[in-house]
Amino acid sequence: MEKEEHMKISVIIGHPYSKSFNAALAEKTTETLKKRGHEVFFHDLYRENFNPVLSPEELAGQDGGDELVRIHRKEIKEADGIVLIHPEWWGQPPAVLKGWVDRVLVPGTAYETTMTENGSVTKGLLKAETVILFATSNTPAEREEGVLGDPLLHIWRDCTFSFCSKAVFDRIMFRVIETSTAGERKQWLEDAAGMLEKYF
Amino acid sequence: MEKEEHMKISVIIGHPYSKSFNAALAEKTTETLKKRGHEVFFHDLYRENFNPVLSPEELAGQDGGDELVRIHRKEIKEADGIVLIHPEWWGQPPAVLKGWVDRVLVPGTAYETTMTENGSVTKGLLKAETVILFATSNTPAEREEGVLGDPLLHIWRDCTFSFCSKAVFDRIMFRVIETSTAGERKQWLEDAAGMLEKYF
Repeated sequence: MEKEEHMKISVIIGHPYSKSFNAALAEKTTETLKKRGHEVFFHDLYRENFNPVLSPEELAGQDGGDELVRIHRKEIKEADGIVLIHPEWWGQPPAVLKGWVDRVLVPGTAYETTMTENGSVTKGLLKAETVILFATSNTPAEREEGVLGDPLLHIWRDCTFSFCSKAVFDRIMFRVIETSTAGERKQWLEDAAGMLEKYF
Repeated sequence: MEKEEHMKISVIIGHPYSKSFNAALAEKTTETLKKRGHEVFFHDLYRENFNPVLSPEELAGQDGGDELVRIHRKEIKEADGIVLIHPEWWGQPPAVLKGWVDRVLVPGTAYETTMTENGSVTKGLLKAETVILFATSNTPAEREEGVLGDPLLHIWRDCTFSFCSKAVFDRIMFRVIETSTAGERKQWLEDAAGMLEKYF
């Protein structure tokens, strides 16, 4: 499956702690991708103080004047692949990452909508061929996939990237993080690298 | 179903526009609840500049020093009922409302966790008996409940309030908002009032 070409990969992490296992995943991701010759657009949303609140002007389709958001929009349009890294909170990404979706994946960047007599028709604009999710969770798999309906799969694959790209979606859920051992976490970093090497 | 007693109801809205249909729903909600003699804890998260980003200190269980968050936590513990009003963006609430969950529904306020040999055991702390969701959407019901797996139901009922309360969950999805007529929206406000009168 090894691909030879140089790719641009967006790596986006949203976690409050700079020394979290999420941060270790981000470091391993960047290192693995660079070793394979790819260009990495790296963003730690907490460290860069990303503001997740979509403004009224932005909702109206205007440029809100946030230079950081402009950079994110430019990069995500160019990305051949996207890697998202976050803890699962309430079956969802942290607000800072939800706001990245709200503010960055806007019409003109991620999709375009044409109004017809029968309602709106949407076309995805992202060229990324692969989206990878690395999420940490404290919810056991049985409960997550049963009672909760595997919310992150729906949120990221069906509600987000199916809407604005033709990308293949794959992921690893690292669980249960709170009771994991150092040995397990070490192996998990290798598992993450293995998935990245499969696609990029 | 009419209940005589005085209740405390938290009403939380997250929408960028102050003249949106969401804002009209919030106004109708407050008016209906007050007319029935209830006390309303009203918060328009955009208007009050609620910061949705959970800080590292807060994740560690410390008080982050945000007075507004303290008020939210105090009120949500006291609330007999909760009404959430928001547009559906990417199958989810806007980031500002996701961050309200992240920062307000914290351990000690919304739930408590006890570690045991077999992992953690959680007990909900919210006393609210009813949670009502009014969400506006541009996704047709077939697609939402089919392809997307009805994400808002899972997010709010299963992932959030089942975890921290014993509340009954009910909702109205107002759709398709972008092609709705003034007459439909007027009726929708009455539908919202009808649901509130049923529970509160």
